[in-house]
Amino acid sequence: MTDLSERLAAVVGAGNVTVGDAIAEDDTHDEALNMDPVVPLAVVRPADTAEVAAVLAIADETGTPVTARGMGTGMSGACRPREDGVVVAFDRMNRILEIDTANHTATVQPGVTLAELDAATAAEGLVYPVFPGENSASLGGNVATNAGGMRAVKYGVTRHNVLGIEAVLATGETIRSGGKYVKASSGYDLTQLVIGSEGTLALVTEATLRLRPRHPHVATVLAPFATLDQVTHAVPKVVTAGLDPLMLEYIDLLTMAAATAYVGLELGLPQEIKDTALAYLLVVLESPRADRLDQDVEATAELLGELGAMDVFVLPAAAGAQLVDAREKAFWVAKAGNADEIIDTVVPRASIPEFLAAVSTLATDTGSWIAGCGHAGDGNVHLAIFQPDVEVRDEVLHRLFEMGMELGGAISGEHGLGKQKAHHFIALEDPAKLALMRRIKGAFDPHGILNPGTIYD
Amino acid sequence: MTDLSERLAAVVGAGNVTVGDAIAEDDTHDEALNMDPVVPLAVVRPADTAEVAAVLAIADETGTPVTARGMGTGMSGACRPREDGVVVAFDRMNRILEIDTANHTATVQPGVTLAELDAATAAEGLVYPVFPGENSASLGGNVATNAGGMRAVKYGVTRHNVLGIEAVLATGETIRSGGKYVKASSGYDLTQLVIGSEGTLALVTEATLRLRPRHPHVATVLAPFATLDQVTHAVPKVVTAGLDPLMLEYIDLLTMAAATAYVGLELGLPQEIKDTALAYLLVVLESPRADRLDQDVEATAELLGELGAMDVFVLPAAAGAQLVDAREKAFWVAKAGNADEIIDTVVPRASIPEFLAAVSTLATDTGSWIAGCGHAGDGNVHLAIFQPDVEVRDEVLHRLFEMGMELGGAISGEHGLGKQKAHHFIALEDPAKLALMRRIKGAFDPHGILNPGTIYD
Repeated sequence: MTDLSERLAAVVGAGNVTVGDAIAEDDTHDEALNMDPVVPLAVVRPADTAEVAAVLAIADETGTPVTARGMGTGMSGACRPREDGVVVAFDRMNRILEIDTANHTATVQPGVTLAELDAATAAEGLVYPVFPGENSASLGGNVATNAGGMRAVKYGVTRHNVLGIEAVLATGETIRSGGKYVKASSGYDLTQLVIGSEGTLALVTEATLRLRPRHPHVATVLAPFATLDQVTHAVPKVVTAGLDPLMLEYIDLLTMAAATAYVGLELGLPQEIKDTALAYLLVVLESPRADRLDQDVEATAELLGELGAMDVFVLPAAAGAQLVDAREKAFWVAKAGNADEIIDTVVPRASIPEFLAAVSTLATDTGSWIAGCGHAGDGNVHLAIFQPDVEVRDEVLHRLFEMGMELGGAISGEHGLGKQKAHHFIALEDPAKLALMRRIKGAFDPHGILNPGTIYD
Repeated sequence: MTDLSERLAAVVGAGNVTVGDAIAEDDTHDEALNMDPVVPLAVVRPADTAEVAAVLAIADETGTPVTARGMGTGMSGACRPREDGVVVAFDRMNRILEIDTANHTATVQPGVTLAELDAATAAEGLVYPVFPGENSASLGGNVATNAGGMRAVKYGVTRHNVLGIEAVLATGETIRSGGKYVKASSGYDLTQLVIGSEGTLALVTEATLRLRPRHPHVATVLAPFATLDQVTHAVPKVVTAGLDPLMLEYIDLLTMAAATAYVGLELGLPQEIKDTALAYLLVVLESPRADRLDQDVEATAELLGELGAMDVFVLPAAAGAQLVDAREKAFWVAKAGNADEIIDTVVPRASIPEFLAAVSTLATDTGSWIAGCGHAGDGNVHLAIFQPDVEVRDEVLHRLFEMGMELGGAISGEHGLGKQKAHHFIALEDPAKLALMRRIKGAFDPHGILNPGTIYD
């Protein structure tokens, strides 16, 4: 043990510090593609906020980089360790501290997983409505990346559903921000600033989340279209129709074929449809009342017909859930298919057709293969990029992000920049904003110990 | 003209700078009670972002304090000028730049009023759902204070409905943040940080707002209760019933009598109710369909009966709108009644009964008279305080804010801290957070020219 790890062990107990060969392989990476694992100086597993604060105080004093880690399901390398730093893993801080049914809030430690929270809220007829698609993800990781997912079109993303946090600053000071209320005008909103900061501003040790009533009635409508263009043009019209869909996803032909094959799903679509549909629109509706759901399904089907759908299928509950599951697994499908990169650029939803047309041209021009699906309702386009040449791929990514930003969008809708996309962000973002963000970083973390190399260098 | 005002005139034109006696009385204050007007060095009225940037560059160079001003409807003195500073008034930057019906967004300059935006969105069947109660307020002011209002229980506050901003930093640099999308994980959320910062971090020169479908069917339900306690205990139960009310307000007896008298409203309630009801719950429901509204009204009435309402009245449309209007004018009623102070503390909604019980004790103990109403659905309690002694009143406010914070709330839900409540914030907030906020302030505004004396000193 080094001096540093001995000091850390004095805080969290020797059994909760791993070093060298004892460091688990899992702790050396997240799910970002094409990023080599990195073994840190040490991995520490604090039991409570006071231990986190003590660890950060040591790190700040010794100038040691600190990378926070939830369940490691991130897609951009934000929790990939640094070899000169320590990892603070939150899997021991995994308690649901409270489900408050009067205020509709849950207060959780960062290591609680979405699956655990979902089970606990279901028991109360409530739901935390952010479903990024990976239920083994931790709430701490969700807060760090401002996780989104398929229900964002109705309920927003993590940012819109976190009411308050407890967080430890780089100095070891602990602050609380926000609380069990949706409105406040009492100083700067530190909660919102820390959300999505990917572990670079503070370590979140507790979060108070907004819960909603869990609607018992859900229906899945699937509409095949002859062209992807028809699907993407239909999206703004479905949103403006006021049916308030829970999910509104587009899936291109290749992704649909691969995803359904991956989970072994047979939707029973006629062969003629399978042969000719080039894209699908998936609409999930929910309601507190069965009769209203039926009305909404009927209205949706009618609207999709008017918008040029080849047919409209209302899927049986089990098949609907499986299809949503298959769509959520699109990342794994792409990974299994040896995709070289995954991106999740966001654009204004009405600009999806223009963006995808440009993507298609770019793929042709660079000899790349690009397939995708996306959260059509909120303009978040997920693309799997197949381009083995590292330099060409980097240029393809640069152009994709640039095109998204030119359309008024952003590099990442929900995955974050992490350590993987930081150089693109630096290359494409306004230097005045980058400089401002770095100054804000300095206000939180004067010695730059929190997750250096992430978001910006 | 001084040197400074000549330089400002060179930017905005001599006709758009006022100094000395030419400064309009309106430009010397906002609507905060008991704050004397202050005449600034100059009031400038820029025409566009470039002029704002040029004005700020001059102010930064000369170390001149800058106070931004929308329509001056604020309640906490945030836009009260400083005598050593200049006011940047946004009434010339009052264009609605775009209503985007495909993306459901409006892009506005800061001087646009809520009334103007409401008319423009209504024409498209859309609505910007933040109604702080004063339709002559500007969007710029709303962004600065994170304005709330009665519909926050359903649609959230300004923070939840602003997707992007253009803003000028103290240095004169102009940045754009966010855009026509609800999800992003691409660096720190500068939009959210600037919202609610009361003109201390940057001047917002453009905002992109999220619009929603405007529901045609609205119903107002009024339930008198024998005690205020019954009303406040009913609130969490109404929220958790899943009826998704547009508004959920409590009104105490005195406020109801004064407010309805103020607008000349006769609700036709039986004399017996008027004589014995001590508080009222106001529930407004909306729906895209008339049949669903009827069902929801019926369910609401039944629920309120179960919760102990003396009776339940479904008001005719005109009377319902008038009652909402009367409730919105509660501030003016209090002002007309010579209230000495207005506060809008927020607490977890289930803690309203406990808070109001403590308020009642405090009023008795200090010989004050405290009446109120509030956004019961989101825990935002509005109180009018009648206590002529300045020192006693200051102590009453301190105790009220302290009690709210002890219950997990915040000093202000929507009015902001401004220059009026800054000293309470400093006295009650965690010093570590205050220090952090000051460092963030320094990251935006190194020379401290933006609205000094606001939020904190």
